[in-house]
Amino acid sequence: MASPVELLSLSNPVFKSFTFWVGVLVIKMLLMSLLTAVQRFKTKTFANPEDLMSPKLKVKFDDPNVERVRRAHRNDLENILPFFAIGLLYVLTNPAAFLAINLFRAVGIARIVHTLVYAVVVVPQPSRALAFFVALGATVYMALQVVLSAAF
Amino acid sequence: MASPVELLSLSNPVFKSFTFWVGVLVIKMLLMSLLTAVQRFKTKTFANPEDLMSPKLKVKFDDPNVERVRRAHRNDLENILPFFAIGLLYVLTNPAAFLAINLFRAVGIARIVHTLVYAVVVVPQPSRALAFFVALGATVYMALQVVLSAAF
Amino acid sequence: MASPVELLSLSNPVFKSFTFWVGVLVIKMLLMSLLTAVQRFKTKTFANPEDLMSPKLKVKFDDPNVERVRRAHRNDLENILPFFAIGLLYVLTNPAAFLAINLFRAVGIARIVHTLVYAVVVVPQPSRALAFFVALGATVYMALQVVLSAAF
Repeated sequence: MASPVELLSLSNPVFKSFTFWVGVLVIKMLLMSLLTAVQRFKTKTFANPEDLMSPKLKVKFDDPNVERVRRAHRNDLENILPFFAIGLLYVLTNPAAFLAINLFRAVGIARIVHTLVYAVVVVPQPSRALAFFVALGATVYMALQVVLSAAF
Repeated sequence: MASPVELLSLSNPVFKSFTFWVGVLVIKMLLMSLLTAVQRFKTKTFANPEDLMSPKLKVKFDDPNVERVRRAHRNDLENILPFFAIGLLYVLTNPAAFLAINLFRAVGIARIVHTLVYAVVVVPQPSRALAFFVALGATVYMALQVVLSAAF
Repeated sequence: MASPVELLSLSNPVFKSFTFWVGVLVIKMLLMSLLTAVQRFKTKTFANPEDLMSPKLKVKFDDPNVERVRRAHRNDLENILPFFAIGLLYVLTNPAAFLAINLFRAVGIARIVHTLVYAVVVVPQPSRALAFFVALGATVYMALQVVLSAAF
């Protein structure tokens, strides 16, 4: 079995692919805050008194455009962040490169699609459900492999 | 001191235990999405117009069964995800195996109990508070050890 | 290039600094739960029937003091947790120590300031926005470096 030295080096194509997709998904997630801010200013929906731009405005919590982006963002927290943890441990189980790289790609692309069809241009179901389940399935598969590697 | 090579290998029982519990908790967390979906379909509570299964339904945000699962899920994000980060760094401080393995077990079991008594079968307090504080206490202890190792 | 053995050792000042700030920020994040609890008891705002301390109380979801701490906490999840993932990968790209250590410091201090001005003593804008963008900018910079290291 390869040692962690080699497994966590960018010369390991599996780790390199993981690193690439974590970087892309972190940037994607952080952009959700800016997307929320854009919707807040467009619809003048601010959650804190100190954020109100004019004394005529009041705090507001129920704008559907703001809440949609916030739901997409929360869904990222629920799905992308666990992937970061399990993906690293999966790399350390020394998986077959072809499978591992395509699992990372599946998660990365599916989560970008999820954001696009949820929070950028609303596309009818089952587009969002499909994107959600591709990423979920790949993450659960990795988690099962990790549990099996560690259990015996 | 042991090198990271040995510390992040499955032949290190501390890392093996950490890996096992991260895998279990990732699967547990991802199941929360499915538990939310079950409650959404049962109570016909959908947050997005494109999710409505019938033209007679309207978006709804205040079903107590859905919101209960969502609060349990958010509590996972707040407590389990920081554990993933600090647990890995704690492994890299080369802690005593007996203590470390039991801390990981405590977090893993306490967070499963937390979900069961919060979102599956509601059990009167202080069951949820106890489960919450066991996991919190173990995580704070690891974080303090990590800060102390890095501060001097 | 240095090997992961050296990069993830506390004798690497970059990793040591990362470890320190992750530990501090994990403790800071976990304290948000206690801060929420303090506000819940102060304002008698409980979200679950089983949490009500007296039969006269009802569940309540809209107390502004509780919601403010919860927004600050959620903002931590959105920003600090991605930093944990990308920071570790950034350490593994073997960055210049001076830059990396100051980026970690910037994130750590900015996120503590963010909590103070948002959830402890409310300070007028742009204090919260500034704290938010310092941490965001540093995290995005690390993510871009990670993507570039992995892409070529």
